[in-house]
Amino acid sequence: MPHIALPEGLQGIRSAMAFRPETAKPLNELVEILLHAPNSLSPGERELIATYVSSRNDCYFCQTIHGAIAAASLNDDEDLVRQVKTDFMQAKISSKLKALLVIAGKVQMGGKHVTEQDVADARAAGATDMEIHDTVLIAAAFCMYNRYVDGLATWQPVDDALYRERGKKVAREGYVQMSREYIPSETPTR
Amino acid sequence: MPHIALPEGLQGIRSAMAFRPETAKPLNELVEILLHAPNSLSPGERELIATYVSSRNDCYFCQTIHGAIAAASLNDDEDLVRQVKTDFMQAKISSKLKALLVIAGKVQMGGKHVTEQDVADARAAGATDMEIHDTVLIAAAFCMYNRYVDGLATWQPVDDALYRERGKKVAREGYVQMSREYIPSETPTR
Repeated sequence: MPHIALPEGLQGIRSAMAFRPETAKPLNELVEILLHAPNSLSPGERELIATYVSSRNDCYFCQTIHGAIAAASLNDDEDLVRQVKTDFMQAKISSKLKALLVIAGKVQMGGKHVTEQDVADARAAGATDMEIHDTVLIAAAFCMYNRYVDGLATWQPVDDALYRERGKKVAREGYVQMSREYIPSETPTR
Repeated sequence: MPHIALPEGLQGIRSAMAFRPETAKPLNELVEILLHAPNSLSPGERELIATYVSSRNDCYFCQTIHGAIAAASLNDDEDLVRQVKTDFMQAKISSKLKALLVIAGKVQMGGKHVTEQDVADARAAGATDMEIHDTVLIAAAFCMYNRYVDGLATWQPVDDALYRERGKKVAREGYVQMSREYIPSETPTR
C-alpha cells in the first residue's frame, strides 16, 4: 500500500504525478526531452540506458515500463532488453552504447565514480559531448524517478501485457502527450 | 577539469545548464516548485532537506550552495546548517522536520528503504501527506542534481563568500529568475 493517499488505479509514477500535478509538469518535460525528443541517440538507445539504470536501482515499475518502451522502439526485441539489463557487454548493441552504459552505471553509484578514462573510451567509440552529457543526465534523472516511485511505495502491478501495451503507446506518442490521460488539469505555464 | 566542454566561468550545475538549455528549463522549474514556491514547509526547511541529501551524496557544490540558501532563509544561521548536516537529531529544528529528514536520508540510500514506521512517525509529528510527498521528491531530485553536477566533473570553486552571496540572491529571487543570468536564451514553451 502506498505510504500516502495516492489516487487509486494508477500505476507507479502516474499515481504520484496525479497527486502533485505541479511537479508532474517539469518531470514529464524532462523525460520527454531526454528520451523522446529528436536526438543523435535513438529513442531505443536512450530507453535502454533508462532501463539499465532502473534495473540497477531495483525499481520494478521503471525498469518494466521503460524496458517495454525500449522494446517497442527496437522491433519488439524483448530479449535484447533483458540482455542489456543482465550483461550489456554481450548484447548486440554498438560499442558506443556499451561505453555510454558504463558511464550510466557509474552515475547510478554516484557522480564521482565516472572517470576520465570512461569518458575517453566513450569518445573513442564515437560519442559526442552532447551524448555523454545526456547519458549522465538520463542516469541521474532515473536515480530520481526510481526513488520517487519506490520512496512513496506506489502501486506496481505485475502484468507484462499491461506494460507492453503501455510501452507501445508511449514509444509512439511520448511522455507529455500520454501524461494528459492521468494528470487532472494543465497547470498554468509559469 | 570537466569531462566535457562546458562553458567556462560558471560553477557547478550552472555550467551544465548553460551547455544544455533545453533540459535546464524543467530542471529549474522543478527545483523552483520544490524549494522556493509557497509551501507549508518553509523555504529554509526545504533547503535544509536538500542540503542534507547533498551532503550525504558528498556533492560539494550542491551542499554548499543549498546550505548557503538555507542559512540565508534562516536568519543567517550557518551553525544550524552545519548541525543538520552532521547530526540533525541534536539540531534546533522541529520534531516534524527531524522525521522528514529521516525519510530523506532513507530515500538517498534508495526508495525502498522508507518504512511504514518512518511515515507514521512523520505523521505523528504533524507532517501532511503533501509534506511527505515533497520530502521524498526533494530527496530523490537531489540524488539527480548531485549526480549531474559530479558526473560531469563540473568546476566547483572553494570560496565561501561566493556561495554566501549567491545564496542570498537565490533565497530572495528564486531559481527560475536567477537562471536567466546564465542560460543563453529562453527555450520555447511547449
